[in-house]
Amino acid sequence: MAIITLLTDFGTQDEYAGVVKGVILGVNPGATLVDISHHVPPQGVQHAGEMLKTVFNWFPQGTVHLAVVDPGVGSRRAILAARHAGHLFVAPDNGLLGLIWGDLPPEVLVRVENSRLFLQPVSATFQGRDILAPVAAHLSLGMALTALGPSVDFSQVARLERPRARQTDGGEIVGEVVSADRFGNLRTNIDAALLDRLRGGDSRRKLVVRIGAYQIEGMSSHYAQHQKGGLMALVGSRNQLEIAVNGGTALGLFPEFLGLEVRVRMDPRTNHLSH
Amino acid sequence: MAIITLLTDFGTQDEYAGVVKGVILGVNPGATLVDISHHVPPQGVQHAGEMLKTVFNWFPQGTVHLAVVDPGVGSRRAILAARHAGHLFVAPDNGLLGLIWGDLPPEVLVRVENSRLFLQPVSATFQGRDILAPVAAHLSLGMALTALGPSVDFSQVARLERPRARQTDGGEIVGEVVSADRFGNLRTNIDAALLDRLRGGDSRRKLVVRIGAYQIEGMSSHYAQHQKGGLMALVGSRNQLEIAVNGGTALGLFPEFLGLEVRVRMDPRTNHLSH
Amino acid sequence: MAIITLLTDFGTQDEYAGVVKGVILGVNPGATLVDISHHVPPQGVQHAGEMLKTVFNWFPQGTVHLAVVDPGVGSRRAILAARHAGHLFVAPDNGLLGLIWGDLPPEVLVRVENSRLFLQPVSATFQGRDILAPVAAHLSLGMALTALGPSVDFSQVARLERPRARQTDGGEIVGEVVSADRFGNLRTNIDAALLDRLRGGDSRRKLVVRIGAYQIEGMSSHYAQHQKGGLMALVGSRNQLEIAVNGGTALGLFPEFLGLEVRVRMDPRTNHLSH
Repeated sequence: MAIITLLTDFGTQDEYAGVVKGVILGVNPGATLVDISHHVPPQGVQHAGEMLKTVFNWFPQGTVHLAVVDPGVGSRRAILAARHAGHLFVAPDNGLLGLIWGDLPPEVLVRVENSRLFLQPVSATFQGRDILAPVAAHLSLGMALTALGPSVDFSQVARLERPRARQTDGGEIVGEVVSADRFGNLRTNIDAALLDRLRGGDSRRKLVVRIGAYQIEGMSSHYAQHQKGGLMALVGSRNQLEIAVNGGTALGLFPEFLGLEVRVRMDPRTNHLSH
Repeated sequence: MAIITLLTDFGTQDEYAGVVKGVILGVNPGATLVDISHHVPPQGVQHAGEMLKTVFNWFPQGTVHLAVVDPGVGSRRAILAARHAGHLFVAPDNGLLGLIWGDLPPEVLVRVENSRLFLQPVSATFQGRDILAPVAAHLSLGMALTALGPSVDFSQVARLERPRARQTDGGEIVGEVVSADRFGNLRTNIDAALLDRLRGGDSRRKLVVRIGAYQIEGMSSHYAQHQKGGLMALVGSRNQLEIAVNGGTALGLFPEFLGLEVRVRMDPRTNHLSH
Repeated sequence: MAIITLLTDFGTQDEYAGVVKGVILGVNPGATLVDISHHVPPQGVQHAGEMLKTVFNWFPQGTVHLAVVDPGVGSRRAILAARHAGHLFVAPDNGLLGLIWGDLPPEVLVRVENSRLFLQPVSATFQGRDILAPVAAHLSLGMALTALGPSVDFSQVARLERPRARQTDGGEIVGEVVSADRFGNLRTNIDAALLDRLRGGDSRRKLVVRIGAYQIEGMSSHYAQHQKGGLMALVGSRNQLEIAVNGGTALGLFPEFLGLEVRVRMDPRTNHLSH
């Protein structure tokens, strides 16, 4: 078993993803290649980080995850390889991987510098092909991370600031919409755990969600729960608060969704479990 | 050999298809995963059914076909698994599979209820991940359908009504456009067999096809047969009547194509084989 | 190892690519299928040829490359199979493959005529399914090219004229934009070798690139070299001159990019290496 996942902003109209796959199969013809997505928005480092964080753990341990969203290609930014939670990762040092391991360092973290593994000459415009692809392929064959380059201090790798949801003194959660999916569901940065805490662990307590001019009373459990066209709030597959419309798209209601504020508070009428 | 095809409305901009693949490979790392499409229109159950009906039989027998277009996810709709024509299928009970087997029951039909196979906890929003993916993976490893859950009576599963072409008393076939493909070819629900019958099995007889304000005299055999820009009628790769424009798109002529009426009659001049 | 790459204009919204994969796996269930792209612009034979030329050589030798962009399907155009540079190719005889081998004949070139390999009946609208897919699968199992059909004289296969960059008497290179990639980078038909020759092999000499109303002084080495929004010229991953905007898209500046003239000359101030 040698699974390599691919997550890039290459799109599928050009040959870039195919080139990377060719290079990988040249090193390890037996690799199982799995496209996560090549449709990360161009240069969408944070977007890719959120996706990889969501997806990696559903694969078996030992999978190699290759992520190439690399606006800094050809500059002095490093390339990282790491082991975290039994998975292997290769990506540019631009913060993408930081979303995966958060504040705790990964099990192993190295800077990829062993140029004997690279395709020569290394270009300044397509290092996904010349460096990251062959390195991922060698990892899938069992090469040790320490053979790729020196260890890196966790404090020295790039980090992304991303907006975190917070709780106000008044007891309200304030977060924002961070992306929309293909179904037009709006994903927020409000974790399910934060909602649970707001309810004091008592899921009978009703929450009220505000987004734009709308107020949503109570959480839904699934998309088809409401009548068609109904705006609803629910915990989505990323385990975060989502805003959705049954049989429609929340995106259609809020086309300017990015960064849109979302507030959650207890329904005052259920503070004392009167329902 | 353990081939699993994937047909969903997940799109490729999100991680959903990747998550499903990760779960499958976690159960059966040796599976060969083949994307049919992840670009079924969101919630397009009938669209997916037509695609799966067209595609499944080109794969070798024993292939597992996983179809996830599931507007009812989290509701009480069941999940079905079946064997039909030597192929295995897993999909929500929403009519999608009914288009494959039509009016005759499949060889085996069960309701998927063996929760030991599911990922726990089963979510209410992504059962493609939690139920359908591991079940498809176990089938690809040779698990019997009867190990998934109880048999279901064929009369109790969901069915989709879809528009059927009919023949008028005047001897005309009346059908409609049901979809457009990437080339802008308009696909109708008029089977080639119906056209043959209209001609009394004599393919020399000429047909006249009417769509919107246009009248097409005679059937073409292939797209490049006519001059560029010419509107033509032909039997497409689904073995149904298609409307096409050589070097252009019929979709461009009929942007409001869905449900557009298409009528076919014998050319009166060829009733007596005068041509 | 039996790798088969797929390059088509089928898109991914329809079942066409899935059907082709099913047919291949029916013949060779152990084949490793790799999508190069199914998003070649419809009927974009030259576009596909440029992509295949760029991508094929990154795969290991022995790979079978199946390219189906086939506006002439069902007409009398032939289907070709070839070996070139240790790779195997199957495609319609419409000029697509000619871009790969250029003016020198491939190692082996045959017309595919062995109908015992085809799916019967062969349709007039989807020969990617009925002819090209099974032929590619048999090649991946080791069938000899000569078993597919008779040798073809190199002078008799279709060729595409494509615009070539030229050098004026005044010493300027005149080329044009041939395509845009997903990042909005504009790709020209000006090879890096031509730029080197203009500089007389001395890379210190500065070039000036003109496109539309813009003049770009000097070549960049990578995308992030300039300030955000800066228009730049660089040698891209196809080893040809590209026009790009750091953090933006050159396509946005030149929406009518196809065939747009690009001129390159020496900076007169560096003729004598004064810099």
